[in-house]
Amino acid sequence: VLQIKPFPLRDFLETPRPFRANVPGLQLFPTSLWAKIMARRLRHLTTSQLLGSDTAGYAPLREQIAEYLRLARGVRCSPEQIVVLSGAQEALDLTARLLVNRGDAVFLEDPGYVGAWRVFEAAGARLLPLAVDHDGATTPDERHGARLAYVTPAHQCPLGVSMGAARRLALIDWARRSGAYIFEDDYDSEFRYEGRPLPALQSLDTHDCVIFSGSFSKVLFPSLRLGYLVLPPDLVDALGALKSVTSRHAPLLDQIALADFMSEGHFARHIRRMREVYAERLSVLLDSARTHLAGLLTVSSVAAGLQTVGWLAGGVDADRATRAAKSRDVVVMPVRYQSQRKTPNNGLVLGFAAHDAHEIRHGVVELAAALEGLQRRNSRSARSARSSRIPGQPGSR
Amino acid sequence: VLQIKPFPLRDFLETPRPFRANVPGLQLFPTSLWAKIMARRLRHLTTSQLLGSDTAGYAPLREQIAEYLRLARGVRCSPEQIVVLSGAQEALDLTARLLVNRGDAVFLEDPGYVGAWRVFEAAGARLLPLAVDHDGATTPDERHGARLAYVTPAHQCPLGVSMGAARRLALIDWARRSGAYIFEDDYDSEFRYEGRPLPALQSLDTHDCVIFSGSFSKVLFPSLRLGYLVLPPDLVDALGALKSVTSRHAPLLDQIALADFMSEGHFARHIRRMREVYAERLSVLLDSARTHLAGLLTVSSVAAGLQTVGWLAGGVDADRATRAAKSRDVVVMPVRYQSQRKTPNNGLVLGFAAHDAHEIRHGVVELAAALEGLQRRNSRSARSARSSRIPGQPGSR
Repeated sequence: VLQIKPFPLRDFLETPRPFRANVPGLQLFPTSLWAKIMARRLRHLTTSQLLGSDTAGYAPLREQIAEYLRLARGVRCSPEQIVVLSGAQEALDLTARLLVNRGDAVFLEDPGYVGAWRVFEAAGARLLPLAVDHDGATTPDERHGARLAYVTPAHQCPLGVSMGAARRLALIDWARRSGAYIFEDDYDSEFRYEGRPLPALQSLDTHDCVIFSGSFSKVLFPSLRLGYLVLPPDLVDALGALKSVTSRHAPLLDQIALADFMSEGHFARHIRRMREVYAERLSVLLDSARTHLAGLLTVSSVAAGLQTVGWLAGGVDADRATRAAKSRDVVVMPVRYQSQRKTPNNGLVLGFAAHDAHEIRHGVVELAAALEGLQRRNSRSARSARSSRIPGQPGSR
Repeated sequence: VLQIKPFPLRDFLETPRPFRANVPGLQLFPTSLWAKIMARRLRHLTTSQLLGSDTAGYAPLREQIAEYLRLARGVRCSPEQIVVLSGAQEALDLTARLLVNRGDAVFLEDPGYVGAWRVFEAAGARLLPLAVDHDGATTPDERHGARLAYVTPAHQCPLGVSMGAARRLALIDWARRSGAYIFEDDYDSEFRYEGRPLPALQSLDTHDCVIFSGSFSKVLFPSLRLGYLVLPPDLVDALGALKSVTSRHAPLLDQIALADFMSEGHFARHIRRMREVYAERLSVLLDSARTHLAGLLTVSSVAAGLQTVGWLAGGVDADRATRAAKSRDVVVMPVRYQSQRKTPNNGLVLGFAAHDAHEIRHGVVELAAALEGLQRRNSRSARSARSSRIPGQPGSR
């Protein structure tokens, strides 16, 4: 029996409290509009709509996605290159099955998306970490002969940085020279707060080496389970064959409702609205952190996405900080939970999208109180360690 | 790049004509009732419902399924043993990934469900055919050390026979002695027209060797993409871990609507109604075949399911019969398309569920005309072969 590490969902399903990561502002999703579109379609369901859809998905939805990607992400593709799936997780899993054999080397960002690590681990791949700095994931080393690199260029998961232009070109060049593929997880690209949106890596790809993955989980709602892959033309048939054997096709009614939601302009409108809301929430978090968290946690600004990171001061450990925050009903997550290496445990992931200004300010005050308590205890034990030291002997530094 | 044979869907998506197999009577699905339930839920969507569900599925739906299976199928399970999936195809795929390594032997019914052959072929299994007779699939040979046997005991796909009681016990005994698993695809068990319903194989299993799979595709509608697995307790966690990594969970709103549809009694009512409708359609097909197809095609009766088979008389080849029928707008499929061996090509699969009495009678008349034309041509060419024979020489028999 195959034993693989699960991707934990239970925490994610709790009622979101500040600063749970990866949760969008669901209170502002236009459920009644979605209900209206669904109801209209349900009243006029045809026999052929009850029957099924192409394995690649509902054709009008694939056209809407191609058009959106062209305008918003610079992605160059025809609707025929798009396969509708249940989200980034399935996109990763099918890609791994299509391209990765046991023992193949795969580069993954570290820290990085745990769901991707789990998929390539289950595929029996040799996992190689790609360090991440202020400019995004570093460039893979050609000598490993890797089959694929998984990256989140728009908004690195979990650090929130965007990949710089030179890095993007170097990554594409690596793939071209190595005959490898890049899996571009366009994670949280929709919400960009600063400067011009960066076009997708895929838009720079002249050698059909980029597999582009998008999801509606954050832009609409996660329980919808809809996302897509944009494939290089020579992988389209093989992926379609695989999807037909693994689960045939995505549920049709949800695809039809989503195509209507997009073609009637609600999708673009919802993204615009949420971008403003999230930008405001981010700025409340940053302002509030400057006031209350100075000397405790340095919160990074981010150019995009639904979360950022904070770096702990005074030697406070991120696991202890997470527990202390929890006792005050504040949810944070150590950055190290998303790392496969032993790195300094001083980073916290902070989601800011699911809560209004009042809740964010309250969360910051509570988090500050929790961290102050830890710092006080830290300095007390440092003092008592100093006073118990015998003069002339080496101290316990 | 993994190259696997696709499971063809395109034919299935055409507007159904008699006698397309595996298509339920979708004109009679209560779409307005389904729409009402959906609309009611959509109007009161909570944030947590927008967020997601457990990997194993929506808890009230799993309870409804467990209760239905207990009453209708004799299946003994707790809701915790149920995982909601997109259908039998995903159930097969995840089971293969969980249990079957490259080179493992797997028994499959032959003729049998092509979608199952594709899954185990993609898993790199050694595929062993299980012959099927009037009593269902024959018992696997213990000496092959197989890992799993795939069977459709309620209504064999495609022959329509039900597995007899002795065969069921022998199969369970084989699994127990071999340490193998049985994948029970409870294909079309819901619609049984004769005698008492046979309880599932799973109800006889005292050694946790049966994996039971059910689907809502035929009972409700195929584009819904919902089905489930009932797992032996010791496989529950491993399958949940796999599902969390491959696609997280099934879409939640559809699961909620289905749970309501079941708990409010609509599900049981719809099955009862459709069972009567299908029994009537089957009897129209059999009566009409006796009148118009005598000497051309012997149509078997079936005790359950949405289709049956007919056996061609007069040496007419099933591929030629299929082409001749198509030219008269009648859709049949050679039984041999679902066989991996070179068997006599004289069987046709006939679906009877999707069409009313008038359409079925018209289809039978057209099919009779097509087959008569072929028989006439056959006997003409036999006569001309006889007349061109040189007396005293061995003939071309």
